[in-house]
Amino acid sequence: MPIDSISCPIPIEQYPQVLLAHGGGGKLMHQLIEQMFGRLFQSEDRHHHDAAVLGVPPGRLALTTDSYVVHPLFFPGGDIGSLAVYGTVNDLAMAGARPLYLSTSFILEEGLSMTTLWQVVQSMQQAAHQADVQIVTGDTKVVERGKGDGVFINTAGVGIIEHHQTIHPQSIQPGDLVILNGDLGRHGMAVLAEREGLEFESEIKSDSAPLNHVVLDLFAHGVELHCMRDLTRGGLASALNEIALATGVAISLDETCIPIREDVQGACEILGFDPLYVANEGRFIAFVPPQSVDLALARLNAPLSFPLSGQSDTHPQMRHQHPAQVIGQVTTTTSPRVTLTNRLGVERIVDFLSGEQLPRIC
Amino acid sequence: MPIDSISCPIPIEQYPQVLLAHGGGGKLMHQLIEQMFGRLFQSEDRHHHDAAVLGVPPGRLALTTDSYVVHPLFFPGGDIGSLAVYGTVNDLAMAGARPLYLSTSFILEEGLSMTTLWQVVQSMQQAAHQADVQIVTGDTKVVERGKGDGVFINTAGVGIIEHHQTIHPQSIQPGDLVILNGDLGRHGMAVLAEREGLEFESEIKSDSAPLNHVVLDLFAHGVELHCMRDLTRGGLASALNEIALATGVAISLDETCIPIREDVQGACEILGFDPLYVANEGRFIAFVPPQSVDLALARLNAPLSFPLSGQSDTHPQMRHQHPAQVIGQVTTTTSPRVTLTNRLGVERIVDFLSGEQLPRIC
Repeated sequence: MPIDSISCPIPIEQYPQVLLAHGGGGKLMHQLIEQMFGRLFQSEDRHHHDAAVLGVPPGRLALTTDSYVVHPLFFPGGDIGSLAVYGTVNDLAMAGARPLYLSTSFILEEGLSMTTLWQVVQSMQQAAHQADVQIVTGDTKVVERGKGDGVFINTAGVGIIEHHQTIHPQSIQPGDLVILNGDLGRHGMAVLAEREGLEFESEIKSDSAPLNHVVLDLFAHGVELHCMRDLTRGGLASALNEIALATGVAISLDETCIPIREDVQGACEILGFDPLYVANEGRFIAFVPPQSVDLALARLNAPLSFPLSGQSDTHPQMRHQHPAQVIGQVTTTTSPRVTLTNRLGVERIVDFLSGEQLPRIC
Repeated sequence: MPIDSISCPIPIEQYPQVLLAHGGGGKLMHQLIEQMFGRLFQSEDRHHHDAAVLGVPPGRLALTTDSYVVHPLFFPGGDIGSLAVYGTVNDLAMAGARPLYLSTSFILEEGLSMTTLWQVVQSMQQAAHQADVQIVTGDTKVVERGKGDGVFINTAGVGIIEHHQTIHPQSIQPGDLVILNGDLGRHGMAVLAEREGLEFESEIKSDSAPLNHVVLDLFAHGVELHCMRDLTRGGLASALNEIALATGVAISLDETCIPIREDVQGACEILGFDPLYVANEGRFIAFVPPQSVDLALARLNAPLSFPLSGQSDTHPQMRHQHPAQVIGQVTTTTSPRVTLTNRLGVERIVDFLSGEQLPRIC
């Protein structure tokens, strides 16, 4: 994501790095909040209250949180700032909510480059604009050198549920089809390649993108949805296993329908990863009853327009996009499980991973 | 705070420490969330959604967040877990809101003792019970050894504003009196003493406590309030300076009315701190018009009863409590400032601190 070249509002000749005092509650912290965070985030009231007071339209409320510790901070297709916005926005979207407000909290390591922080903050602001959410309140802490790792960001998000559908694993029915909105494995591989200094034939870019616009478009067109889940840590396989376990259903997948780019497949093979377990940041599955599948696919594969003023970019969700398609089906079973039928017609069980696959990819 | 001796739900002979895999999205993370966090937090729906879906009564909504990096994790009168609950609850209370829901997010360092984590989680649960809020959604990340410091906790809080008062610095009027609800400086000194292994004549305990019950009691009794602020990082002096700067008023304090315990005063003198700048976690100031002051003081100094089932303890807010009293007044001025008149009648300016005073006290 291109970052505007607005110069850093903290004088970097004087403060090239974050100091412990930037989190101490005195003059420097006040300056950082006022001049850097306050300049880009939309809170009308950021320094007057420790809490933002918000107008919320009627409806059920959704609340979510994630901390972001991705390493490195910048990777092809994104950075910790945009990830911290899109990740939380997507969690709200998966609950069927329209994201409205985010809080953001920084844990900075003493010695962090002030310019790096400024890049991250600008990226958050651009991402919030893309996702059409407001960052309304925040917090900053600084820990000593060696007690953190550059910057960790927490965002919490509040959204409103404006429809009457119950988006929940318990709503899943045998016969429901599983739709996936694009190719798998790019985010995890992009972060890993950047971290380890690996070069592949072509640069793999993270699929990181806000999902709220596409999801709200489904609701707006009357698509019946039973459940949605974004495919972050643990990838497609873990998300499906969690759902199978929570609901007692079986889910059978057709491997030939799951799009994985050749470069991603190749990188996974070289490095010994199964792309079904690799993290994505712009991919989700939807459980849809058969009668809604055609409409859902039509909407997911239609060019997306959404009301953002001054938006000239193509929406990130649309870049390098494989079409959404049906990848599997829910069946009844005596024990919950996820199975995959491969190109040769052989069926295997897809289980939870036992250990970590890729630490710190989000 | 006494911690129930419920044994750790994660088998500690097998997992005595947190592993990177506890944050990896696989089996171990699933187990940690299900068996530890899920056992104590009240979400009905924790593993089904990445967001909690909540019923909220009508009213304006308040949203706040704080990350907690206090070092050490346990200190006299509290720990990072209770602090993470009370701190965020108090931010909501200061906005005049009734705290309803918290999110919580952990950044764990690989190698953290599983028993330590369990103690912190139990403390959060007890604190949430004391404060009468529900922890409804969460997240867990694990970073490599040496890239964090045991555990950092973020909480975000949602509350509802049920009254029609505008609690805001802009509501402050010349003539308003400033009420302080107790003695200053205990939290910062308690944490510092524990961190540095200092021993004073008597143990100084943190004043950490939830403030929502006392604040909601003020609203329930019709006390007119213009603004409130809790006195955390930067202490009383920084809070008043922020308010003076935001509103353009002058605030004059009477030093003889500001209660500071002898042991706290002594510790501050030995260590070179000014208690006006030391952090508190259960103290706040209220800006109150003259006609409401008597009622406010009466309510703040009345024994507090609040509807918690099975509550036998004295409320922590009531322990070792100096009475609430008026410590100053708002006056008009040509330039915003905070002044203090001492025991000898000499007036001095109380400014922002330039550097850090005490890092990592919250």
